[in-house]
Amino acid sequence: MAQVFNFSSGPAMLPADVLKLAQQELCDWHGLGTSVMEISHRGKEFIQVAEEAEKDLRDLMNIPSNYKVLFCHGGGRGQFAGIPLNLLGDKTSADYVDAGYWAASAVKEAHKYCAPNVIDAKVSVDGLRGVKPMRDWQLSDGAAYLHYCPNETIDGIAIHETPDFGQDVVVAADFSSTILSSPLDVSRFGVIYAGAQKNIGPAGLTLVIVRDDLLGKAHKACPSILDYTVLNDNDSMFNTPPTFAWYLAGLVFKWLKEQGGVAAMDKINQQKADLLYGAIDASDFYRNDVAKGNRSRMNVPFQLADSALDKLFLEESFAAGLHALKGHRVVGGMRASIYNAMPLAGVQALTDFMQDFERRRG
Amino acid sequence: MAQVFNFSSGPAMLPADVLKLAQQELCDWHGLGTSVMEISHRGKEFIQVAEEAEKDLRDLMNIPSNYKVLFCHGGGRGQFAGIPLNLLGDKTSADYVDAGYWAASAVKEAHKYCAPNVIDAKVSVDGLRGVKPMRDWQLSDGAAYLHYCPNETIDGIAIHETPDFGQDVVVAADFSSTILSSPLDVSRFGVIYAGAQKNIGPAGLTLVIVRDDLLGKAHKACPSILDYTVLNDNDSMFNTPPTFAWYLAGLVFKWLKEQGGVAAMDKINQQKADLLYGAIDASDFYRNDVAKGNRSRMNVPFQLADSALDKLFLEESFAAGLHALKGHRVVGGMRASIYNAMPLAGVQALTDFMQDFERRRG
Repeated sequence: MAQVFNFSSGPAMLPADVLKLAQQELCDWHGLGTSVMEISHRGKEFIQVAEEAEKDLRDLMNIPSNYKVLFCHGGGRGQFAGIPLNLLGDKTSADYVDAGYWAASAVKEAHKYCAPNVIDAKVSVDGLRGVKPMRDWQLSDGAAYLHYCPNETIDGIAIHETPDFGQDVVVAADFSSTILSSPLDVSRFGVIYAGAQKNIGPAGLTLVIVRDDLLGKAHKACPSILDYTVLNDNDSMFNTPPTFAWYLAGLVFKWLKEQGGVAAMDKINQQKADLLYGAIDASDFYRNDVAKGNRSRMNVPFQLADSALDKLFLEESFAAGLHALKGHRVVGGMRASIYNAMPLAGVQALTDFMQDFERRRG
Repeated sequence: MAQVFNFSSGPAMLPADVLKLAQQELCDWHGLGTSVMEISHRGKEFIQVAEEAEKDLRDLMNIPSNYKVLFCHGGGRGQFAGIPLNLLGDKTSADYVDAGYWAASAVKEAHKYCAPNVIDAKVSVDGLRGVKPMRDWQLSDGAAYLHYCPNETIDGIAIHETPDFGQDVVVAADFSSTILSSPLDVSRFGVIYAGAQKNIGPAGLTLVIVRDDLLGKAHKACPSILDYTVLNDNDSMFNTPPTFAWYLAGLVFKWLKEQGGVAAMDKINQQKADLLYGAIDASDFYRNDVAKGNRSRMNVPFQLADSALDKLFLEESFAAGLHALKGHRVVGGMRASIYNAMPLAGVQALTDFMQDFERRRG
């Protein structure tokens, strides 16, 4: 069988070396005679795994010491509730920027807890889908925080700017699909959160990076498993954490360091995106509908000029070892998710296939 | 190295055959060229995994068709909030039976949402710790439900009775440490829930089995990831589920079927418990403080008459391949957790060691 490249949007491809190591030590971890998923989270062995993962993440992202790192249950969706439940305090509204599917989903959940002031940031740029620049976001008075999603996995839209709204604005952002893909100034944010299943590890783990002055004001109705203060006070072990996912995330962090860290990934991710968008733009057979300044480097949706060929494209690409290219049902067409774990060779194989397909079917 | 038997209370031992299979197919699942943890939860391949797991669980537990099975994030602790948030409806109180550490923890979380009527069921039976029989539980008028925990992992206390309070009493129970260890009449319960990391699979997955007439009345402040109705409407895929844990749970369910199902496990679990309690009772060197009628078959705490020997016992037992026997910090001494995955041979090895240790050190 040809090498498989898996373009799933999440749960997504993991680094091949990480999976191989996890396989090797699955039944006998570090000579202990048991699996790492069978040991107590409170034993010294797992605590070392947990602490190393946090340290490596802090190194990779240059996380300032006044930020806490939490390893949580519940996915990004859990944080759609966690953010208002932890950050509202005695306020009753928050600003929510809507630039795509996930941002809008966060708004829907926020309605349970406050009156979200929705900033519709979607704009059309020469007929392409784009996002208003941050300077045009109309923040409201009295908002507890500003929430946005810098990368929309379904729409293929990204907000590449870094927020700079001053110290009084607490920015909370859903980095599920871009965390660790490029350098980030953590100090611009109040809370950064990310479901693991795209750039970190397997589904079932969520990272929360929270500035410590924001702790201590969770709503009384906040379930303990979503309460940042409770989680922080217990080193993310108030309840049994998803230990195997945490361990795998730790292996991914070590792998990222071996690759040269986030700066090196940033460079490769740019190469991958340039290659794929270049192939799309060079052809009338393929099309991407996102304004150039807002194109995602992680999720690249594209359409065939003749959608009647979609089915054939999916069948033949799968047979060529290029998996999970079907677009989200909301958008249709194709989508290639090219997170950190996707090597340049995978994107090269995809563009080669696209050109060959066009030659044969165009 | 001698074979290792791992008595961890959770995350706990998994069936060796399940781990071996997971290892075999970790990097190339069913010839797909990718790991099962790398594929979309919405693809036909994973949906088959998910559906088979549910079907096998329904077979194993004889779950009636008017009960829904949910595969959730958040652990048992998540359900301490999930239960009141889903079951209170327009009521403001619920009955909580307190017979140990976990039952008391559920009470603490319930205080966020209602006025729990705490039924203290702890009793002393000839100086041993026991639990009041169910007929002596004083249920209150107007309670939305009755919550209890049939097995206390830390205290080593079990409530072996099956509730029979009539159709008007909604019984919610935390079966994290006993699910699938003995036959259960599901129809006696409104909600059965269980963190996976003891008798089901790895940490990070929680099962909820809920009678369908209880759906549709979640509190408005219930986070979607804990809302049984939302989860049920979306086949437990409202958000990305912990797919690898779900897959592993499915393998454990198939393994249980191969062993002869829950009735067969019940028999082996009784043998294991008889062997271990028998060894404790036959000696003045070891002691268990739980009344016989309330002894847990899953978690067996025991004390050495001379606690100065605890450290040596732990060192020597570990060296003999008997892991994780240290008791919970709240109770001290030793604890052997002997869930479904622990073979009789493991308990035999433990009792052999205990007798040998007594001979040498007693």
